Amino acid sequence: MTTTSPTVDVPANDAVSGDSVTARLERARVASRALATANGDVKNAALEALAVGVVAASERVLAANTTDLENGRTAGLADGLLDRLRLDDSRIAGLASAVREIAALTDPIGQTLRGSKLPNGVKIDQVRVPFGVVGAIYEARPNVTIDIAALALKSGNAVALRGGTAAENTNRVLIAVIRDALTSVGLPADAVQTVDDFGRAGATELMQARGLVDVLVPRGSASLIQAVVTESRVPVIETGAGVVHIYLDETARTDWATEIVHNAKVQRPSVCNAVETVLVHRAAAERLLPSVLSRLAASGVTIHADEAVAGLYPDVVAATEDDWATEYMSLDIAVRVVDGLDDALDHIRRYSTGHTESIVTEDVAASERFLAEVDSAVVMVNASTRFTDGGEFGFGAEVGISTQKLHARGPMGVSELTSTKWIVRGTGQVRG
Amino acid sequence: MTTTSPTVDVPANDAVSGDSVTARLERARVASRALATANGDVKNAALEALAVGVVAASERVLAANTTDLENGRTAGLADGLLDRLRLDDSRIAGLASAVREIAALTDPIGQTLRGSKLPNGVKIDQVRVPFGVVGAIYEARPNVTIDIAALALKSGNAVALRGGTAAENTNRVLIAVIRDALTSVGLPADAVQTVDDFGRAGATELMQARGLVDVLVPRGSASLIQAVVTESRVPVIETGAGVVHIYLDETARTDWATEIVHNAKVQRPSVCNAVETVLVHRAAAERLLPSVLSRLAASGVTIHADEAVAGLYPDVVAATEDDWATEYMSLDIAVRVVDGLDDALDHIRRYSTGHTESIVTEDVAASERFLAEVDSAVVMVNASTRFTDGGEFGFGAEVGISTQKLHARGPMGVSELTSTKWIVRGTGQVRG
Repeated sequence: MTTTSPTVDVPANDAVSGDSVTARLERARVASRALATANGDVKNAALEALAVGVVAASERVLAANTTDLENGRTAGLADGLLDRLRLDDSRIAGLASAVREIAALTDPIGQTLRGSKLPNGVKIDQVRVPFGVVGAIYEARPNVTIDIAALALKSGNAVALRGGTAAENTNRVLIAVIRDALTSVGLPADAVQTVDDFGRAGATELMQARGLVDVLVPRGSASLIQAVVTESRVPVIETGAGVVHIYLDETARTDWATEIVHNAKVQRPSVCNAVETVLVHRAAAERLLPSVLSRLAASGVTIHADEAVAGLYPDVVAATEDDWATEYMSLDIAVRVVDGLDDALDHIRRYSTGHTESIVTEDVAASERFLAEVDSAVVMVNASTRFTDGGEFGFGAEVGISTQKLHARGPMGVSELTSTKWIVRGTGQVRG
Repeated sequence: MTTTSPTVDVPANDAVSGDSVTARLERARVASRALATANGDVKNAALEALAVGVVAASERVLAANTTDLENGRTAGLADGLLDRLRLDDSRIAGLASAVREIAALTDPIGQTLRGSKLPNGVKIDQVRVPFGVVGAIYEARPNVTIDIAALALKSGNAVALRGGTAAENTNRVLIAVIRDALTSVGLPADAVQTVDDFGRAGATELMQARGLVDVLVPRGSASLIQAVVTESRVPVIETGAGVVHIYLDETARTDWATEIVHNAKVQRPSVCNAVETVLVHRAAAERLLPSVLSRLAASGVTIHADEAVAGLYPDVVAATEDDWATEYMSLDIAVRVVDGLDDALDHIRRYSTGHTESIVTEDVAASERFLAEVDSAVVMVNASTRFTDGGEFGFGAEVGISTQKLHARGPMGVSELTSTKWIVRGTGQVRG
């Protein structure tokens, strides 16, 4: 024993002396009250201040981002991850413009969803209110920090962010910019909190903070999402992977089939709404496949196909059982001949992750059955699966795409960050 | 070793040879497809068959219920629990009439909640769809079996029920009646499953059945709900306890304050929407308390009060810190003098369980602040808290009263047992 031993243990990952995750979440909870009752004008002024502020802070943001990128390269991060981590002037301008799009949306708070007057004269109204404190756990994409903070602010929520170690320097600067924007319009900076400096323990505490955090949104890899779903005691909205299907029905137009499949696969293969499997009606396979597949091949797509496809279009690799369940996120596609709509529905029920499926058809009965019977967040007829996107749906940006059925399903915008409450107005009524 | 030993272990609680919880949930999942696409007429015919069937089966139901009551008495069940377990002809008629009320509701399935046409001509619509398979874990109340099955059927869901050992005989007969009603109109009996015969293991498997069960609703004691929230991997909608407050503001009318508090406490003290704490503005305490408290005392209510109250109305017991956090569910009430609205809001923030709070006031500014700032599922002005109820709100019956913010908040009817999906209709559009 030496006289210099500290008498109190200080956790090594508690970077802010005397602070704790719980203390920050409690400050977020207090700040959430000011956000919940803030007028739309004030929230929009904060968003405009953020759009201006993030561009004004470009130099600081990019310096921090360079540090993160250097650390990432040293740590051997894959090129794709480094690309998602990287900011530049144009991407920063993109962040500002996303924030302005969110500001331009209708304020969801205070909207009346249902209302009625009971026989005894009591008036009941269900109105939109913020959740309170929204938690987000995501991987090294600095744009998610700005998107989620802006969506939370627009919907009157405080937010607690855990953004991934690889982006920690960039996120630290971005969060300071967001907090300054809040302060500049008289809203509490504490409405935006990070737990990044607590490392993995910060994420764990966030997941255990039932009562302090109202909802937690994990956004990132399947393994991240699974870990949060399994560990969290806070209610979770699951955003998920997409094994996305397009079914080419007997009556599908060749040109639509060709362009929709090509767009859905090639326009951006690394995202969750890209198509992974094409099913084609046996009676139309000979007509459709040469056009559909040669268009894909010309863009460098590898075709994983069953024997029936290979008989009609030989330049393929043989598909295995694994192919039907794979989210490639690359220029690969699985193609299978089916006996018709029922067979296609069976295949989709078995392999779909419930994200997006599309049918190409001229037959209204087939299209209506497909729309009714496919149990996915988004079901389409004669359109590219790439349209499953908050921006495309007019939401400004998205918190993520929910593949679960509770609370939110499909692209999540500001409305999906709200709860409701019932307002009951009486004149002395009691229950008989 | 003897030659008569069984060669295969059969779990003692697996009453159906070769069956399993998973097998039943998979059959429910298959059956859910027929429910999801069933027309409203067919679902209503099944509900009418159930209403007729439960009355026709009275003799069988009451015989089974007698067995449960005898077992309950032997096991030393409290009188209150025995009362909730007991059925008689009049209660069976009540079950039938609740089922008919549910049949009379508008079918929520297929309703369009939002829709728009994108600039490129793609049409998007958000429509209500069933969850698929709804799980419920509840305690020994046979009426919940009928209520939840009927609400699930109306909303196009299959259901998996775990109803508490004390009611197992009654529930077995009721579930047979429900399954017969489905079959009688051509719907699959497998849409209603019980896991009661698997005992506690059945509940555990239900909570682990992520992917087979879409949402789980626990209904019962605080400890049951906490256990489900903690253990379940299936998304849970928490129904909760009510530490319910009424705040009597400076301008509260004496007659309204007196009758609202009395009704909220005395009409049915054992339920979650009964008031537990009354807060009274200091400037109105002398005017209001004698009337409010003597009316309560005349109905046998014990008043747990702070010193300021005791100074004005001496016939009280001294309140302790515990009283402010207690859901009495009995003829007890806690009463406190506060300095005004801010003080009342602070108290409510600290002790409320977020169920229902009501203000009695003539002051519109105070009422609007209370409605805006109290963060509870239901917030009222000048009305009894006993109105927080699915039946009172016009929902026919209720699955429970949600005190969480995700998906459903307040009384849960058929709409709260639905999810949504996006229907996208194009004419060959691809993303640019």
